[in-house]
Amino acid sequence: MSDKNFDLITFGEIMLRLSPPASERLVRGEIFEKQAGGAELNVASGVSLLGLRTGIISKLPDHEMGTYIKNRIRFVGVSDDYLIYDSEPGARLGLYYYENGAAPRKPSIVYDRVGASINRISLDEIPEEVYHNTRMFHTSGISLALSENCRAVAIQLIKNFKAGGALISFDVNYRANLWDEDTARETIQQILPYVDVLFISEESSRRMFRKTGDLSDIMKSYCAEYGVSIVATTQRTVISPKKHNFSSTIYDSRTDRFYTEPPYEAIDVVDRVGSGDAYVAGVLFGLLKYEDVEKALQFGDATSSVKNTIPGDLPSSDFKEIQRIIRSHLADGPQSELNR
Amino acid sequence: MSDKNFDLITFGEIMLRLSPPASERLVRGEIFEKQAGGAELNVASGVSLLGLRTGIISKLPDHEMGTYIKNRIRFVGVSDDYLIYDSEPGARLGLYYYENGAAPRKPSIVYDRVGASINRISLDEIPEEVYHNTRMFHTSGISLALSENCRAVAIQLIKNFKAGGALISFDVNYRANLWDEDTARETIQQILPYVDVLFISEESSRRMFRKTGDLSDIMKSYCAEYGVSIVATTQRTVISPKKHNFSSTIYDSRTDRFYTEPPYEAIDVVDRVGSGDAYVAGVLFGLLKYEDVEKALQFGDATSSVKNTIPGDLPSSDFKEIQRIIRSHLADGPQSELNR
Amino acid sequence: MSDKNFDLITFGEIMLRLSPPASERLVRGEIFEKQAGGAELNVASGVSLLGLRTGIISKLPDHEMGTYIKNRIRFVGVSDDYLIYDSEPGARLGLYYYENGAAPRKPSIVYDRVGASINRISLDEIPEEVYHNTRMFHTSGISLALSENCRAVAIQLIKNFKAGGALISFDVNYRANLWDEDTARETIQQILPYVDVLFISEESSRRMFRKTGDLSDIMKSYCAEYGVSIVATTQRTVISPKKHNFSSTIYDSRTDRFYTEPPYEAIDVVDRVGSGDAYVAGVLFGLLKYEDVEKALQFGDATSSVKNTIPGDLPSSDFKEIQRIIRSHLADGPQSELNR
Amino acid sequence: MSDKNFDLITFGEIMLRLSPPASERLVRGEIFEKQAGGAELNVASGVSLLGLRTGIISKLPDHEMGTYIKNRIRFVGVSDDYLIYDSEPGARLGLYYYENGAAPRKPSIVYDRVGASINRISLDEIPEEVYHNTRMFHTSGISLALSENCRAVAIQLIKNFKAGGALISFDVNYRANLWDEDTARETIQQILPYVDVLFISEESSRRMFRKTGDLSDIMKSYCAEYGVSIVATTQRTVISPKKHNFSSTIYDSRTDRFYTEPPYEAIDVVDRVGSGDAYVAGVLFGLLKYEDVEKALQFGDATSSVKNTIPGDLPSSDFKEIQRIIRSHLADGPQSELNR
Amino acid sequence: MSDKNFDLITFGEIMLRLSPPASERLVRGEIFEKQAGGAELNVASGVSLLGLRTGIISKLPDHEMGTYIKNRIRFVGVSDDYLIYDSEPGARLGLYYYENGAAPRKPSIVYDRVGASINRISLDEIPEEVYHNTRMFHTSGISLALSENCRAVAIQLIKNFKAGGALISFDVNYRANLWDEDTARETIQQILPYVDVLFISEESSRRMFRKTGDLSDIMKSYCAEYGVSIVATTQRTVISPKKHNFSSTIYDSRTDRFYTEPPYEAIDVVDRVGSGDAYVAGVLFGLLKYEDVEKALQFGDATSSVKNTIPGDLPSSDFKEIQRIIRSHLADGPQSELNR
Amino acid sequence: MSDKNFDLITFGEIMLRLSPPASERLVRGEIFEKQAGGAELNVASGVSLLGLRTGIISKLPDHEMGTYIKNRIRFVGVSDDYLIYDSEPGARLGLYYYENGAAPRKPSIVYDRVGASINRISLDEIPEEVYHNTRMFHTSGISLALSENCRAVAIQLIKNFKAGGALISFDVNYRANLWDEDTARETIQQILPYVDVLFISEESSRRMFRKTGDLSDIMKSYCAEYGVSIVATTQRTVISPKKHNFSSTIYDSRTDRFYTEPPYEAIDVVDRVGSGDAYVAGVLFGLLKYEDVEKALQFGDATSSVKNTIPGDLPSSDFKEIQRIIRSHLADGPQSELNR
Repeated sequence: MSDKNFDLITFGEIMLRLSPPASERLVRGEIFEKQAGGAELNVASGVSLLGLRTGIISKLPDHEMGTYIKNRIRFVGVSDDYLIYDSEPGARLGLYYYENGAAPRKPSIVYDRVGASINRISLDEIPEEVYHNTRMFHTSGISLALSENCRAVAIQLIKNFKAGGALISFDVNYRANLWDEDTARETIQQILPYVDVLFISEESSRRMFRKTGDLSDIMKSYCAEYGVSIVATTQRTVISPKKHNFSSTIYDSRTDRFYTEPPYEAIDVVDRVGSGDAYVAGVLFGLLKYEDVEKALQFGDATSSVKNTIPGDLPSSDFKEIQRIIRSHLADGPQSELNR
Repeated sequence: MSDKNFDLITFGEIMLRLSPPASERLVRGEIFEKQAGGAELNVASGVSLLGLRTGIISKLPDHEMGTYIKNRIRFVGVSDDYLIYDSEPGARLGLYYYENGAAPRKPSIVYDRVGASINRISLDEIPEEVYHNTRMFHTSGISLALSENCRAVAIQLIKNFKAGGALISFDVNYRANLWDEDTARETIQQILPYVDVLFISEESSRRMFRKTGDLSDIMKSYCAEYGVSIVATTQRTVISPKKHNFSSTIYDSRTDRFYTEPPYEAIDVVDRVGSGDAYVAGVLFGLLKYEDVEKALQFGDATSSVKNTIPGDLPSSDFKEIQRIIRSHLADGPQSELNR
Repeated sequence: MSDKNFDLITFGEIMLRLSPPASERLVRGEIFEKQAGGAELNVASGVSLLGLRTGIISKLPDHEMGTYIKNRIRFVGVSDDYLIYDSEPGARLGLYYYENGAAPRKPSIVYDRVGASINRISLDEIPEEVYHNTRMFHTSGISLALSENCRAVAIQLIKNFKAGGALISFDVNYRANLWDEDTARETIQQILPYVDVLFISEESSRRMFRKTGDLSDIMKSYCAEYGVSIVATTQRTVISPKKHNFSSTIYDSRTDRFYTEPPYEAIDVVDRVGSGDAYVAGVLFGLLKYEDVEKALQFGDATSSVKNTIPGDLPSSDFKEIQRIIRSHLADGPQSELNR
Repeated sequence: MSDKNFDLITFGEIMLRLSPPASERLVRGEIFEKQAGGAELNVASGVSLLGLRTGIISKLPDHEMGTYIKNRIRFVGVSDDYLIYDSEPGARLGLYYYENGAAPRKPSIVYDRVGASINRISLDEIPEEVYHNTRMFHTSGISLALSENCRAVAIQLIKNFKAGGALISFDVNYRANLWDEDTARETIQQILPYVDVLFISEESSRRMFRKTGDLSDIMKSYCAEYGVSIVATTQRTVISPKKHNFSSTIYDSRTDRFYTEPPYEAIDVVDRVGSGDAYVAGVLFGLLKYEDVEKALQFGDATSSVKNTIPGDLPSSDFKEIQRIIRSHLADGPQSELNR
Repeated sequence: MSDKNFDLITFGEIMLRLSPPASERLVRGEIFEKQAGGAELNVASGVSLLGLRTGIISKLPDHEMGTYIKNRIRFVGVSDDYLIYDSEPGARLGLYYYENGAAPRKPSIVYDRVGASINRISLDEIPEEVYHNTRMFHTSGISLALSENCRAVAIQLIKNFKAGGALISFDVNYRANLWDEDTARETIQQILPYVDVLFISEESSRRMFRKTGDLSDIMKSYCAEYGVSIVATTQRTVISPKKHNFSSTIYDSRTDRFYTEPPYEAIDVVDRVGSGDAYVAGVLFGLLKYEDVEKALQFGDATSSVKNTIPGDLPSSDFKEIQRIIRSHLADGPQSELNR
Repeated sequence: MSDKNFDLITFGEIMLRLSPPASERLVRGEIFEKQAGGAELNVASGVSLLGLRTGIISKLPDHEMGTYIKNRIRFVGVSDDYLIYDSEPGARLGLYYYENGAAPRKPSIVYDRVGASINRISLDEIPEEVYHNTRMFHTSGISLALSENCRAVAIQLIKNFKAGGALISFDVNYRANLWDEDTARETIQQILPYVDVLFISEESSRRMFRKTGDLSDIMKSYCAEYGVSIVATTQRTVISPKKHNFSSTIYDSRTDRFYTEPPYEAIDVVDRVGSGDAYVAGVLFGLLKYEDVEKALQFGDATSSVKNTIPGDLPSSDFKEIQRIIRSHLADGPQSELNR
């Protein structure tokens, strides 16, 4: 074990998610399911449920809904030590509305995050000790896109954690409704030199970073150009809103090796949101726990696949469950049908 | 736009629908979902949600449950201007019980509509102005089958609306539990000379109307024999109670052209009831809005397919949603997985 | 114990009850609670839960909703041996809609029982053995009011059971929406000579039977005029829709004694429906089990009071619970706050 | 009846309301009840359910949640003819979180309405025909307080409707979290000369308007100083979060008469929000329908009292229900316990 | 019909089952669905719902939860005549937690049955008349495995019922978490000479009974070695946690014939628990009702397949439903999509 | 602040609680609310929500239900550092069933805690560092009563924490269903010499400890006889299951002063369970935070009163809420009706 208090600290917005139950719709119905979510919280909680110590830096309104989010964060095993509370007028919790899809209808998301308290966060509010207190720091492109202030804080955090000796993990996670591709590329290029572990989709590589050639060359290029150690890319095949296949590829520049495995097939998609973050969580867990890229891949694929079966953004699988799923995925021959 | 107040007026029974949630059963359980439905309301609401002005002629008991139905009608954008209230003793709301299927178990319907207030409707109660106030009138074979009085009123309404200058749309919608095929055929033959747009299944054509030959010839025959302008027939393939394919064919006798498109495949069936009515709604919308049979076909197929994914009889898709689904159905190549 | 198979057989309509949850309203909302009820079923189930053997004679539609009712009847311990199933066209289950009150708004009931299968019951369908197979028979004025056929069957049942050696219990239970006071009085006068145990409210005595004088004289008069043995009358004080007081008086003509006790006060009314029937059940249980009018009164008051706290028409209190409540009602001094 | 299309048009923000069910809390739980509300919508829907024709001028985001609100508005009988949709980036639906109280815990409200689309409304978007199309216009102090733009639009609407021949109704409805008392007083003083019907609490009169003396003098003073015709003030006594008393006083300067009646006592408070608006609705209905201040008072007191028993901001009582409640409130002697 | 009161008596533990709804998880969520179950109750209720008279011998705690189980037992038509109540200290109801699966996550079961009241049952508590009162007795390997006392009672019951003239049915139903294969084999070998109808999986035959060769030879061997008349084995193919195929084979040694039929394919698995017991129920019903092995197979396959579509352990299909499913399974050509 | 990591560590059993919703009953219904509770957890969470750092020593089964409890513990802000997991066969989570009361029906509790994993806890499993790591330790008579092993561990923990410098708090919390009064008295007498803060009801003092005289003398006697510093006794008046009054008295032997305040009246009791523990939490918070007995009394009375309004065993009130309630309780004159 490390002498640092945390294995992973993340930074990002935490939102309220409101979803109609089952097949109900946003435009009607009388009930919302009330959940907490946000890319970087999803990652931290995934790692935490697998058994490592994590925390999140974020800013929440200092009212009941901020307390609700804090409670949920603790429920999934993430430390609330670095939550900051906003008691200024207009303090608000960003939120989004999410509706499940059913073929031929796709899932829908409506965001309402403008002016959320996270955008008022300041570096001064974050205790300096945190930078030396974790083995790894993770954030995503969403944090760079939310607002100018958020971007500045996120970039400075990356630098401070790097200086404090933490590994830096970054998930590009491009959202066209938050910023355009040019701004995204230019901003991300600034921080790539600090990044040790990079998550980027093939589509973002090709469209935002204008990469061409085959995927392996593209993945390698981030290591060559920016000194990234590890690059991970996922492949999701959407058979229908309720049925996906999933696999991924990881490149380790230190050994110049690619890792992959056969896809998880016919995943029963109950709630697709957060499955990308669950992948990041699985991979980071594998790296932090085992320093073994093959295990990272296996944990990433398994945690992501199984997240699709769990309602809400947040994962709920512990180490024993992920192990069972990996074992089952690797197994040949007949298997028991139940965990009895 | 027309100078008439309504684009579509329909006539028919509106019922309370009671369904156990999810996989629960009629014979047990402690909850019913409470919904409004009825073939002609389903059609009117579908057209209304797509953006045209619709109303419905019907009769409801003058008590809380009649008010409930009125409120739901308004919720889906249909005018309550032509609702009539029954305050006689024994006034009642027809209802039906519906249970979802799951292979190898089919969905079940139990009707309890005998003596419902709709059967006491009288032409005198319907304001004469309505006949000149709409571009189109629609009803179905169910209204002809409910009772002798209902049949007489429905037939007279068809005549009056025709005389008032409205197009007449009619959906055969044969229900063996309401009347026999001979009575149905003889009754419907009376009204076919007034009909401009006819919806009839291949099975009804072959069994009730004793048509033979291929489907195109059958469809054409209604135009030749009765002067119908447009005939539409749907094809549904039931893979399982939770998975259907759907397509349709429309014949336009004015241009002597048939229209069809590749089926919607692997539809996630959440609630199959009302998807036939949604098809009618989509087609009528296309005809009323664009006077374009190809568009009518596209709207019909899309609204019907997506209705299967919506709980309850009533549709809930607006114009933007149907457009997205049509676009997606027509598209080649990879598509985004979410409406974000 | 008697050598008869049943302690009590009742006759009456069994209905589906549909209620919006908690404070929700009939005119809106998306959920109905689905329950079974009916005056004579409520009585049978109350007696059964207290430990005696009961059955009910009724007629139900031969479809899923009839099966649902049968299952619920068995759930509350009442035999389904004498249920008759209606598979004729139009077979239907009577139903009613019920909405809770909250001051200043009263509870509301909307009935939809016209044409229910009970009205098609025929004496031929009832096995003759039943008349010799029970210690007591009970029905209510509702069964006399539902339809001409129902009335004829109910009256003949009273005579047959009397002839078979059973005691006859009758609850006047006047409902102005089913019949008028004159018809009611004349009909009930015909059956009073057969009645051993009579339940009648003071209001019915004064208005329908045009009795005058004080309540004791009125109660005595039924014994003098018609040979009734026992007459019971309840007193309910409605403080608000959610708070009642309750007590009763029983007159035993055999000993010429009146029985009463201090009222149950500040009853938390969760669901008032069926509390009158629960009273009947408690009294009949006391008479059948102990042949002791004081105990009958205590059980009647306790089962009625506690029924108000139970959702639905049907009681759910067993012998141990009623004993605890009686003991607590009779006790002086501090009591434990919980049944631990 | 008037030759105008509407009896009442209101202007104001419409919000999403999110409430944990029953006794659950904002800081925990997994469900929110999803409702629509807003002072001026509450008023319009109250008047509409009582039988008059109403509409609302407001601005909603052009996404699913705006459609949800539109559907709810129609459900309660209010016209959506004057809704304007905001498709600019950042378009959002204001919302608030509401938690019920239980002694000794008070109800809690957390607002999240900053930046809502209503604040982007412009006079140009409102069709001019509306000003001549209604008998009365109503808005509240909340609309004056939301933002500078909102205030300007509201004031101009008052002037335009007055010019168009409509009566002007105004509810002070002071909210300390939106503006301070000085700004409120100065703003309201500007519009009082246009106001025909004024709703103001005694507390606002004394604190914001710095009135002294007894309540009658205070009420009269608005008529004397600003030419107001009718002034109404409510008296609510909070016995506990679940039990209130309610009454009101109305002064009619045209006849120089005060109207009042005995309070509604021991109201079962299920949801207190919107009961003030329901009062306004009842009074305006009485004035518009009967032009009779005594009836206005009776309808106001009854609709307000009964609104407390209904979940959500919006009323659900129709004319028959309010009549029954008024009759019952005025009655002496024993009453039936149920509406059967 | 036989002159015995029951067609089938079973013996076994009845448990409370607690399951999170839909896709929710044991480790989180705020709701459990509350159900009754247990292998031998499942069998009895299946036979009972199909129309025969059944009862169960079991022991339940003498408190509210025992009453709950009794009520549920009656709800599914099983007699409570032979339930015994445990009022000793520590009396408890065994329970288990069940979570649905979704690919790649399997369903999970956590048992909490140690010390349940069933383990305190004594032969003395069971009335001797029962042994002569039924046509068939059924129990399973679970009853032999629960505890030493349970095993002794179960074995003695088998002997007593055999002596009383009942047929003996036994389902091996091996559970590795209750006992090991050696103990199981040795115990079951003791009772096989009494068994007329044996249910055993191919896996148990091969692993526990160390049988080799093809399945037909294995099935025959039980008849040759122990005198069993009928041996039944099921084949389940798990496509995913939500999609199974199912068929079975029955060997009748009296005629030396094997029976099988094409599998039910693409079963929509809503709740897999109890589908094995439903198979036993269907087979026993076929044998008891028709004494026809082919019908037994058809009923077994149909009741098992459809049980997968029903939430909870207990079946809910009556004779009409199973007949419809068998008819549909045997049919060629297009079928109606609904039971209307 | 102290240099210790925790302000309070407690020791005790943590149970699953299962309750039917609202007015539903244990003997019927289809849903259980799933909650965590236990006297010492309730105390720790109450202190934690008010802002201090707490933990709990307990033992949980090493399966999903143990994880559920751990997650809930974290949700309410209590550290899971000292939870021990039981992976031996038979590991189980104690549980209890709880049903709300409604006059004249009392709430009911059915325990099922025999053999729970807490009874297998061993001192060796508890890290020694904990004894020096907290300012205060708390446990209750329940932990002494559960089993011999539990008692031995609890007593040793008291001694070890005392030796480690922690204050010792003890709540007698006598449960007649767990042990008899003589054993309880003799056991508690052993540990009283270690106790600094004692919670004991007047009834326990009089019956178990056979104290006589007035309450003040009784309270003082524990200080004189055993050296206790502070003795607290609560007074609850049960007006009905849904309405209580509450107050308390604290004696501080160091200053020889009694503290009390006017009772909280007409508390709306939603869920009475855990309100005694909430009192302990409030008092301990007051002592730990302010070392001020008057504040301790105020926090105790307020946290206990408001806990009655919260579903479940666990409190949910933070410091701001309790402050508001205290302020409101102490205030004269009119108060705002909402926290807006």
